[in-house]
Amino acid sequence: MRKFMDPDFLLSTRTAQKLYHDYAKALPIVDYHCHISPREIFEDRAYDNITEAWLGGDHYKWRQMRANGVKEDYITGDASPREKFQKWAETLEKAIGNPLYHWSHLELQRYFGYEGCLNGQTAGEVWELCNARLRTGLTARKMIQMAHVTLLCTTDDPADSLKWHEKIARDESFSVQVLPAWRPDRAMNLEKDNYLEYLEKLGQASDMKIDSFAALINALQKRMDFFAAMGCRASDHGLAYIMYEPATQEELEEIFAKRLKGAVLSDREERQFKTAFLLTLGREYHKRGWVMQLHYGVSRDVNEKIFCKLGTDAGIDCINNYAPSKEITAYLNALAKNGELPRTILYSLNPADNAMLGTIIGCFQDGGAVGKVQQGSAWWFNDHKEGMMQQMTSLANLGLLGNFIGMLTDSRSFLSYTRHEYFRRILCELIGGWVENGEYPEDARALEEIIRGICYENAVRYFGFNV
Amino acid sequence: MRKFMDPDFLLSTRTAQKLYHDYAKALPIVDYHCHISPREIFEDRAYDNITEAWLGGDHYKWRQMRANGVKEDYITGDASPREKFQKWAETLEKAIGNPLYHWSHLELQRYFGYEGCLNGQTAGEVWELCNARLRTGLTARKMIQMAHVTLLCTTDDPADSLKWHEKIARDESFSVQVLPAWRPDRAMNLEKDNYLEYLEKLGQASDMKIDSFAALINALQKRMDFFAAMGCRASDHGLAYIMYEPATQEELEEIFAKRLKGAVLSDREERQFKTAFLLTLGREYHKRGWVMQLHYGVSRDVNEKIFCKLGTDAGIDCINNYAPSKEITAYLNALAKNGELPRTILYSLNPADNAMLGTIIGCFQDGGAVGKVQQGSAWWFNDHKEGMMQQMTSLANLGLLGNFIGMLTDSRSFLSYTRHEYFRRILCELIGGWVENGEYPEDARALEEIIRGICYENAVRYFGFNV
Amino acid sequence: MRKFMDPDFLLSTRTAQKLYHDYAKALPIVDYHCHISPREIFEDRAYDNITEAWLGGDHYKWRQMRANGVKEDYITGDASPREKFQKWAETLEKAIGNPLYHWSHLELQRYFGYEGCLNGQTAGEVWELCNARLRTGLTARKMIQMAHVTLLCTTDDPADSLKWHEKIARDESFSVQVLPAWRPDRAMNLEKDNYLEYLEKLGQASDMKIDSFAALINALQKRMDFFAAMGCRASDHGLAYIMYEPATQEELEEIFAKRLKGAVLSDREERQFKTAFLLTLGREYHKRGWVMQLHYGVSRDVNEKIFCKLGTDAGIDCINNYAPSKEITAYLNALAKNGELPRTILYSLNPADNAMLGTIIGCFQDGGAVGKVQQGSAWWFNDHKEGMMQQMTSLANLGLLGNFIGMLTDSRSFLSYTRHEYFRRILCELIGGWVENGEYPEDARALEEIIRGICYENAVRYFGFNV
Repeated sequence: MRKFMDPDFLLSTRTAQKLYHDYAKALPIVDYHCHISPREIFEDRAYDNITEAWLGGDHYKWRQMRANGVKEDYITGDASPREKFQKWAETLEKAIGNPLYHWSHLELQRYFGYEGCLNGQTAGEVWELCNARLRTGLTARKMIQMAHVTLLCTTDDPADSLKWHEKIARDESFSVQVLPAWRPDRAMNLEKDNYLEYLEKLGQASDMKIDSFAALINALQKRMDFFAAMGCRASDHGLAYIMYEPATQEELEEIFAKRLKGAVLSDREERQFKTAFLLTLGREYHKRGWVMQLHYGVSRDVNEKIFCKLGTDAGIDCINNYAPSKEITAYLNALAKNGELPRTILYSLNPADNAMLGTIIGCFQDGGAVGKVQQGSAWWFNDHKEGMMQQMTSLANLGLLGNFIGMLTDSRSFLSYTRHEYFRRILCELIGGWVENGEYPEDARALEEIIRGICYENAVRYFGFNV
Repeated sequence: MRKFMDPDFLLSTRTAQKLYHDYAKALPIVDYHCHISPREIFEDRAYDNITEAWLGGDHYKWRQMRANGVKEDYITGDASPREKFQKWAETLEKAIGNPLYHWSHLELQRYFGYEGCLNGQTAGEVWELCNARLRTGLTARKMIQMAHVTLLCTTDDPADSLKWHEKIARDESFSVQVLPAWRPDRAMNLEKDNYLEYLEKLGQASDMKIDSFAALINALQKRMDFFAAMGCRASDHGLAYIMYEPATQEELEEIFAKRLKGAVLSDREERQFKTAFLLTLGREYHKRGWVMQLHYGVSRDVNEKIFCKLGTDAGIDCINNYAPSKEITAYLNALAKNGELPRTILYSLNPADNAMLGTIIGCFQDGGAVGKVQQGSAWWFNDHKEGMMQQMTSLANLGLLGNFIGMLTDSRSFLSYTRHEYFRRILCELIGGWVENGEYPEDARALEEIIRGICYENAVRYFGFNV
Repeated sequence: MRKFMDPDFLLSTRTAQKLYHDYAKALPIVDYHCHISPREIFEDRAYDNITEAWLGGDHYKWRQMRANGVKEDYITGDASPREKFQKWAETLEKAIGNPLYHWSHLELQRYFGYEGCLNGQTAGEVWELCNARLRTGLTARKMIQMAHVTLLCTTDDPADSLKWHEKIARDESFSVQVLPAWRPDRAMNLEKDNYLEYLEKLGQASDMKIDSFAALINALQKRMDFFAAMGCRASDHGLAYIMYEPATQEELEEIFAKRLKGAVLSDREERQFKTAFLLTLGREYHKRGWVMQLHYGVSRDVNEKIFCKLGTDAGIDCINNYAPSKEITAYLNALAKNGELPRTILYSLNPADNAMLGTIIGCFQDGGAVGKVQQGSAWWFNDHKEGMMQQMTSLANLGLLGNFIGMLTDSRSFLSYTRHEYFRRILCELIGGWVENGEYPEDARALEEIIRGICYENAVRYFGFNV
């Protein structure tokens, strides 16, 4: 029996251990997609206690606490930080086989030096230990640096001033690159009640009046120019599904005009607008050499009762299983046929789409880049041992795993970089297993190249980061 | 090499063996969902021969025999019991990797003391041995008691008098609790030809005329009161898919009136009626503290030729892969938003829905119960080693496995309780593997709690059984 | 650690090794579905170099090269054979975990005696070695014979003269049976631009004018008679999905007349025509005792840019995830209800359909044949270790693996027979694992029968081959 989460955690063979310890472990991290706050980085946020750091905004944990029958008061409500932590510790004990179990203990080991197991009985000692450690200067920047992060991309709205990014860039005491990433969901989701207010805001940011679809695109182009000047290399879209419903320019202007007047749009009109939006922006990304990330397959805020109380990002999102392959390929083809497809990463929330995606990306590869179209890393609900194993195995079966750009945290927490360690261990376990099993030669040069590539170098090259 | 189905069957590690033999094995069984006949329990059905016990109504076995090219005469027809048994034994030999192979041999070991392998050559000796054993008093009640069952829930129509349940309850010679479970499919499926006859029957049982949708609901409420008085704790619905098509009360009355007149309803009307039916009953279950079980994803009776000959439950059902997540969440939300969602178990026949379901249940958990919304145990066609492993792994990855309410037989046979043993072995293998692999600590207290919970205690608490 | 692809490649247990080496390895091959050219067999095609043999038409490899950022010139363009081979070798190194990695090395081992690893550095020596070997008479026929193939079925259009099959049959120097298989896709796909030209061609082949739907069927019947006379035992259809949209004979004639006039058909009309086409042909297959193969779940030629340059079969096909189970069962039922369902093999390109298919085939089995309705071998993009394991495990869980008709190459290359070896190793690994694990008895007779059946004998019996 292996000791609980020891140095060879998840590494069951000699080759896996070698690949991890010799090649993967020491590599720096480029975290090309996450949701941390640039302001908190600049201000170097400090934490009063572990509940603040762990339970403040982590809806992954909130879901599990609700699943344990914990009252909302102890989750997002007014209970004391110590009480909340106790409830979380008691919940965690039931989370056998859940990535939160491993992430939490990796964080306790790496950031807090705690090698025990967190549960209802040990919650008290862990509370004291973590809080003491937090008070010794374990701040946001320290967490980033401890994890050996050299570059990270935040997630930013086109209307954002990026002032915190600017401040960070000018701060010579902090050498980690913090780049903005372009996430124009609010400009695309014209079905939302507050869409017109958002246009107002975007208009101000771009110093123009957005009174037509053309004007909207123009405003976004201006903002993209600004984002590019600030070092942006990647865009990102959050989609219920990838759709394709073509329309003429006239139709689009009519739809947009209708929306400006406050009229309700039909499903078809909404689909037409969104298709055109995504096509137009795809072309812009291609022109600018940006990567296009499409995160699809989510139904958001499906529990109205919690949504009314807590708003969005409250742990009430789930997989949307409507994802017609026909529309995905039609969308990609519409760009590719004129040579306008940017480097693209497709992430599905539904692991049942792995094989479908693996076959789709293979249709749109071209000589324009190594691994031009990528299947993104096991995302969100799939970000666990089985999910990663399945995503990488599927990718390997259908394409070139050696060109995979690897892991991102997708996190709101500064403690989440251990997910890269988790990923790297699983990657080494997978590849090490193949080598031990005689399925790939024990060729140190090739293996080192593959491991270094997937853990770090492929992403650097793919996004064109300057590290 | 391990001996065929020895005492450590499916338990490949020391920890798995320990968990099973020390914690799981001796626990009693609560079989909270099955299809056995309360009459046969009361009358303590005896069997002339093993063909009667095994092949009388088991359409799982019929399917396999047909797949082996066996003529219907030897399956559901007039061939002699001995001949049928021979055909089954010859079929079983080809069923390598099928759960029927394991279930059959577990039943032979546990009930009949046969440790060999059943095949065409041994069919004769097994026939003799089993029949001899059956004649020594291996009756329905004996089978239930040998399996250490303390409580079971049958599946009952609202119009049922529950007289056999009553007789069993009054029979002091039999201490196993036999509770009714509420299955109102016939009251919901208004597209069926004999729906009006069924309403007649239901009207008689509830002593009222069902001449409106309101009256239908009223009749069902009366019957629910009666079921509750008889100890019912659970409802159950069999659905092609979980739908959501809202309607006004007026529309519902119109649709129902139309159906009473014998008119054909549109798809939309059928969906509206069924949505309203399921919403209304969901609220009733919540009021009564009943558990709502939704079994969805089945296309029934898809082979007309066999259906015309044998009727329903003839081995001609399959997975229906139409299961829009949007409608599932809309249905659950419609109840949850007013605090009317009962404790709910979602079972999908399609294992490709595992991850989707795991993410959906996480959106509707609340402080009202521990593990309030559950993903049901690997059901029907998924009730095998891989299916169980996948369902539990998915559940663990996405939620709290520790709160899982575990196994049920879903069976029509009194010999099927070995499926609980099968499940418990697989559960211990899964969890034991994690512990051996350093993925969960070797914490005897926590592990015992998890194993006891999933095998027995969680279900007792969840349903509110009084055992 | 196991040596790279040694004689026990993929065989991790003693039992697996025994099953493979004692039972599976030496069995001959019947390759009942492939796409090799009968003309090349008759003419005994020789190859100038390994690039011609490997990269000439293999769009599996083209996809991977594009995924490696290789310019089209080095894939399908004008670069020299040596340069193309170099690019392929460099690509292969990244293909860790991909079946092409294993297939390529199995081919190098079995046909060329090369035991090393092909990569950018060894490309030169492999190039020399392979080309030398090709010049020593390693021709198409030699490749077929080296693989111990006794019978193969090509894929042929109804309008084909089958003259090469005739010549091969008359050539006494070549004893391998080369049978035609009936693939009437071009007669079914009336939405294609060149459909009327095709009808012209088919009319000539059948010596009649095709001016109605009835005439089309009549022409096809004539051609089926001819194919049957030439030894055809199997039909084959390539479908986006299996549909069911019934129509009257009058409607069908109207639709066909409309198409003859060049009018555009509605989706519904296209669906009606195709449904009727497939129903009618299914009945014909049943009458003739032919096997019906339905390959579904493909979106073809989704990348217009490459399609315009290279045409079809250019590596730009992917999984179509629209596959309503309702229509599949409705189609099968429409034939089965009148006893007109032929022996049928269902292949889905989407592995997420495995369980659905496994449950569907179980509904349509009957006493007419052993394993009458089959789930086809892991197909095309699924033709790798995981895909095969999953397909066989699913099949075993849901039906009788012992009756599975096993592997086919589906290939355009004469070197692909090593895929049968790959399959056999994986089959023996799966079954051997179950035996070692105590899940199936160590019964040499039963195991030999199962292995021989799946590798060879089941297919011979199922298709009614005379070998």
